Amino acid sequence: MLNAENLKKDVEQWLQELNYKRQPQELYTPIEYSLSLGGKRIRPVLCLAACTLFSDDYERAKPAALAIEIFHNFTLLHDDVMDHADIRRNKPTVCAKWNSNVAILSGDAMLIDAYQTISQVDSPAFSLILNTFTQTAKEVCEGQQYDMDFENTIDVTIEQYMEMIRLKTAVLIAASIKIGALIGGATDAETEILYNFGINMGLAFQLQDDLLDTYGNEATFGKAIGGDIMENKKTFLLISALENASAQQKRELLKWLDAVSPNREQKIAAVRSIYDQIGVKSLTEQKIAELHKKAMDSLREMDISIEGKRFFADFANSIFKRTR
Amino acid sequence: MLNAENLKKDVEQWLQELNYKRQPQELYTPIEYSLSLGGKRIRPVLCLAACTLFSDDYERAKPAALAIEIFHNFTLLHDDVMDHADIRRNKPTVCAKWNSNVAILSGDAMLIDAYQTISQVDSPAFSLILNTFTQTAKEVCEGQQYDMDFENTIDVTIEQYMEMIRLKTAVLIAASIKIGALIGGATDAETEILYNFGINMGLAFQLQDDLLDTYGNEATFGKAIGGDIMENKKTFLLISALENASAQQKRELLKWLDAVSPNREQKIAAVRSIYDQIGVKSLTEQKIAELHKKAMDSLREMDISIEGKRFFADFANSIFKRTR
Repeated sequence: MLNAENLKKDVEQWLQELNYKRQPQELYTPIEYSLSLGGKRIRPVLCLAACTLFSDDYERAKPAALAIEIFHNFTLLHDDVMDHADIRRNKPTVCAKWNSNVAILSGDAMLIDAYQTISQVDSPAFSLILNTFTQTAKEVCEGQQYDMDFENTIDVTIEQYMEMIRLKTAVLIAASIKIGALIGGATDAETEILYNFGINMGLAFQLQDDLLDTYGNEATFGKAIGGDIMENKKTFLLISALENASAQQKRELLKWLDAVSPNREQKIAAVRSIYDQIGVKSLTEQKIAELHKKAMDSLREMDISIEGKRFFADFANSIFKRTR
Repeated sequence: MLNAENLKKDVEQWLQELNYKRQPQELYTPIEYSLSLGGKRIRPVLCLAACTLFSDDYERAKPAALAIEIFHNFTLLHDDVMDHADIRRNKPTVCAKWNSNVAILSGDAMLIDAYQTISQVDSPAFSLILNTFTQTAKEVCEGQQYDMDFENTIDVTIEQYMEMIRLKTAVLIAASIKIGALIGGATDAETEILYNFGINMGLAFQLQDDLLDTYGNEATFGKAIGGDIMENKKTFLLISALENASAQQKRELLKWLDAVSPNREQKIAAVRSIYDQIGVKSLTEQKIAELHKKAMDSLREMDISIEGKRFFADFANSIFKRTR
């Protein structure tokens, strides 16, 4: 019986069994630390679940699932250096706990480690799996670059934003499913449909993140609300607001974007009040619902077991309705 | 006819043909820039040459040769961020010309690119080649970590130093030869001998670098002499000096190592004078000669063409006698 909690437990155990008690310690301890910080393990769970759709033996996808989780945590490690972030998952980041040089080099070793791990996949589709992993890894870097580019401009369209989060977030979620399916023995047509399902789920995942950062509950979300607003981050909310604002609302919004050292509570309250006037929350929810529908349409197209469909539908629902 | 200059020309042309005119520009332009800065292209040339020892078609090794050169330049990119280096090969480094975030992310994309490129190798030994590449890449990170560790301690033995440069420098040179030989169709025993040849050549390459940094000719070496002395870098020279110094010489040397903002010319002249008294130059030259002999012994063991032996012997000689 396919169960996300059980798959997650497997992933946690496998991650703990990876051996990072090696020399030089300063290189490997930060890798062990960053993998021990937890997280939702969405990608490896999806990879394993996708494998079970086509094969009884989901452990065949273990190296791929682990490689993807290692890769994902590598991107967090380097993103935190680039963002000078001190806290992740309520714990000090590697660059804060050690320093940025340690984070750069340990991150590099993690990326190599991800390749070492995925190389252990035993499958007739190995070459396609490796290429999918590499193509995805490149796209994630491209997404991160666009995200950084957006910091220096106010002229970001919704279309550009959706392309950025497709690259930065959605492709890795989609590739997790695709690679799991390939290991299970899925056909090209089947993996294509599942990939599209993953893309839409990944996009929704990010929009939900944008929404929670402004409208979430601090206690369940696990980090302070309003961070995106304070950093003028070009999220779906801010871009929608700018695109739909009246002249007066836009002036007001730009005033807050340009404010030098504004009071935190005041800025968050003021920007959220403009968002409320424009109806940004519901615009975002509509977009999420649209992506949800697309994802479900893909799922319906699939010729897989009822149980498999239910698993992915439930998983998608938990993403679309997540509060953390 | 095997000719290093011709092989280097091929490598330069292939590098130019790589397509980095892609979006986002901030991600790919720094990669193109860093690969265009030149360099000796030792690794890809050795990879191609090793392939020709066992096969007439050295272009089969092209993806591996390029992957190794891309990987090598990735390590330089990230090393320059970690060292806050502004100049490399008389040109601004990527972190100086753009910024450190660009260098981190472009470096990540380069590492992925190296994997994408080596994945194009078409060989029955592909799996072994990929594993060799990955193992080597990990070791290079370990070497860089040891090098950084050594910055914070004076207690580095010659043995620890040789292990550090084996990892940081020699294994990639040795792997270049091994991978080229594997693509050519060499046996395990043959690749083993060539790998050992490469390790000894790589170690000598680094010791020659240490020597040139203190005793080289600024005009031919291409960078300022004495940088290692100014940074108290734990080189073969400094470690040999500390191990062989009299109590008086050691006191004098430690005084200069501890000096706060010393005059550049004075410090370099004083440390070099202590080195001269101890005979550090000749100690280093002896070690290089010893490594040279070992490399030549490996070569003699090989059952390869006279022409092949001559190529590798000449190449090794050019390394052992290099002035830049």
